[in-house]
Amino acid sequence: MHSSTDNNIPKRGFTSKEFEARLLKAQEIMYKWELDAIFLTTPPNIRYFSGFDTQFWESPTRPWFLVVPLEGKPIAVIPEIGKNGMALTWVDDIRTWHSPNPIDDGVSLLKSTLEEQTKNFNKIGAELGKEMSIRMPTIDLDKIRKNVSSQIIDGTPAIWEMRMVKTASEVKHIDHICKIASDAYNTLPKNLSIGETERDAVRKLRIDIANKGADATPFMPAVSGPGGVSQIICGPSDRILEKGDILFIDTGSTYDGYFCDFDRNFAIGEISNEAAQAYDLLWLATEAGISAAIPGATTEDVWTSMNKIIEDASTIKNNVGRFGHGLGLQLTEPPSHSFGNKTQILENMVLTIEPGIEYAPGKMMVHEENIVVSKEGPKLLTIRAPREMPIIK
Amino acid sequence: MHSSTDNNIPKRGFTSKEFEARLLKAQEIMYKWELDAIFLTTPPNIRYFSGFDTQFWESPTRPWFLVVPLEGKPIAVIPEIGKNGMALTWVDDIRTWHSPNPIDDGVSLLKSTLEEQTKNFNKIGAELGKEMSIRMPTIDLDKIRKNVSSQIIDGTPAIWEMRMVKTASEVKHIDHICKIASDAYNTLPKNLSIGETERDAVRKLRIDIANKGADATPFMPAVSGPGGVSQIICGPSDRILEKGDILFIDTGSTYDGYFCDFDRNFAIGEISNEAAQAYDLLWLATEAGISAAIPGATTEDVWTSMNKIIEDASTIKNNVGRFGHGLGLQLTEPPSHSFGNKTQILENMVLTIEPGIEYAPGKMMVHEENIVVSKEGPKLLTIRAPREMPIIK
Repeated sequence: MHSSTDNNIPKRGFTSKEFEARLLKAQEIMYKWELDAIFLTTPPNIRYFSGFDTQFWESPTRPWFLVVPLEGKPIAVIPEIGKNGMALTWVDDIRTWHSPNPIDDGVSLLKSTLEEQTKNFNKIGAELGKEMSIRMPTIDLDKIRKNVSSQIIDGTPAIWEMRMVKTASEVKHIDHICKIASDAYNTLPKNLSIGETERDAVRKLRIDIANKGADATPFMPAVSGPGGVSQIICGPSDRILEKGDILFIDTGSTYDGYFCDFDRNFAIGEISNEAAQAYDLLWLATEAGISAAIPGATTEDVWTSMNKIIEDASTIKNNVGRFGHGLGLQLTEPPSHSFGNKTQILENMVLTIEPGIEYAPGKMMVHEENIVVSKEGPKLLTIRAPREMPIIK
Repeated sequence: MHSSTDNNIPKRGFTSKEFEARLLKAQEIMYKWELDAIFLTTPPNIRYFSGFDTQFWESPTRPWFLVVPLEGKPIAVIPEIGKNGMALTWVDDIRTWHSPNPIDDGVSLLKSTLEEQTKNFNKIGAELGKEMSIRMPTIDLDKIRKNVSSQIIDGTPAIWEMRMVKTASEVKHIDHICKIASDAYNTLPKNLSIGETERDAVRKLRIDIANKGADATPFMPAVSGPGGVSQIICGPSDRILEKGDILFIDTGSTYDGYFCDFDRNFAIGEISNEAAQAYDLLWLATEAGISAAIPGATTEDVWTSMNKIIEDASTIKNNVGRFGHGLGLQLTEPPSHSFGNKTQILENMVLTIEPGIEYAPGKMMVHEENIVVSKEGPKLLTIRAPREMPIIK
């Protein structure tokens, strides 16, 4: 492992005190939104309130539920196979059924648990809205919506209000994975040569990131092309890296469930003036975006600070739709830095700063850094991209 | 890369002819189920019909849609950021919107596309049912269900009928990743020692699997314990492997989108009689399960063949709920080998054979192999687990 990360590895998991604080904050927000409970189905939401971690969620076969009440601790309503694992968390009330059950896969047990909740508001929040997909069969959700006496409403705004501002421990986790991936990106030019493929680059970077202490790399697209890349989300392919290419790599790697999300651009052999100018412009736009991310500003302000620099240079505009977003237990979370988005930037939000341009027809470039909004202002979590594009020989 | 896998790497992607055949089969099934179209939102379903592959799906922010009509080719309804990537596939009709759009994130465009479909049955299938979760905000799905003139019904049974029997090319993909992971499991005892941790085991196995040519390892739980493990879905932890432990590792690694899914058990230093007997019993149950998976049998028959051997030995029963399942573009797919499940086993199904027992209170063991049901009968895709539990020294 690299020396810069050796002495500062955050402890895995979180204390019961931390989960109590998350719960109390959530309950205040639930009260404000007039919710008697929220019920959760997705891995990041269940993990946020329970600490429960399992790769078993990769299997779509069984639904899992966590009910967070307006008063008292979360209640797990889960398949029998998860009982011993859930018992290791701070959750005490664990209710199980024998799953998969083609007739009733947890629906009755979830319904009776929801019916037990206090009825101050007769409303229960669920993951029905933006930037979420509920993780259960829709036909079973329909049964819950029809048969539970309280109204099941969209709890998404409340849930994002709970998760958007990070705790100090969460920030340490994200900082750690950002440092690991930064180190690995910086090492890549030493390990990769002209004549190797996009897929070689990804394999080497993945292995280096694993060796440096990451748990997983769920996201690592890579694209290359002569003088630039035409898209940034597909790949890697077996395309061979040749002199004059640009190689773009993005990664969401994780440590103890928490993501980094940032990219780097590499020139193969040499760099054209055109690509060097685009790189310079985006490096400066990133500087502006970082500086603008202060408590009290809006995400639109952050977008405007970057967009002004890009518009002044009159390049073709980007088509990513935004210049960055939140991150944490997910690769991308609210808020978005975009035109018209008036989300207030708050202390302890973790954000990407991610300006992108199309600098020639069919040639895109995107830069990206991860920051935390500290009391003293924006603070980098990633090691800043080099001032000039690194060259792979 | 290991020599046994070197000469036989399946070509990535699939021919247009293959996609045409998948489409024709799907359209026959849609006609039988009286569906004018299906609309798809999840990565494996979209990939199955389009060939489109992106790690960008790791970001939950934007919905993606593919409409498969009763006649004609699939239509992509996707965020602008995916246009150039989708253009590389066999799909011609690509409709995009500027996403994320907090007001209308593809809903109008999906609605108008669905309204264009032929109205033979006035029914459109969606991913509303078992072993699926639709990947879009429920509030947007509600709008589609309310405002599209055709009825949106559960298309899950039709979709699983399309995907449950694999094509020859799909089987080659799964075979390849099974061989890679088998080789890596077999190499692990040479690379791992008493005194290392569960997490070390996983990191070494992950890196070996990547080096041998896998694209990713989305699933690799590992658990250890003195004389056995108490659960099989959480972990790895930093627990140190000690003499007398059992180490259980499971993996779903992928090649070109296709999963293997099988586990292995290792004894640390020495093996107790109790654990050796459990291993022997499950090895024999697996043999029985493999032999029973023939065209014309049911998944219950496969379950019964394994359960008989386990019941005869009167061990404590398992709590996994089934003894195996389908796999392919997902770690777990229908059907399930379980009591009461009368799914017909068909030629070219790919299945796990996965008996499990609790052989002492709090001590579980599970074996697992992957097979294809060939014309000549069941054929192993994994390299069969050793006849006796391998020992790590």
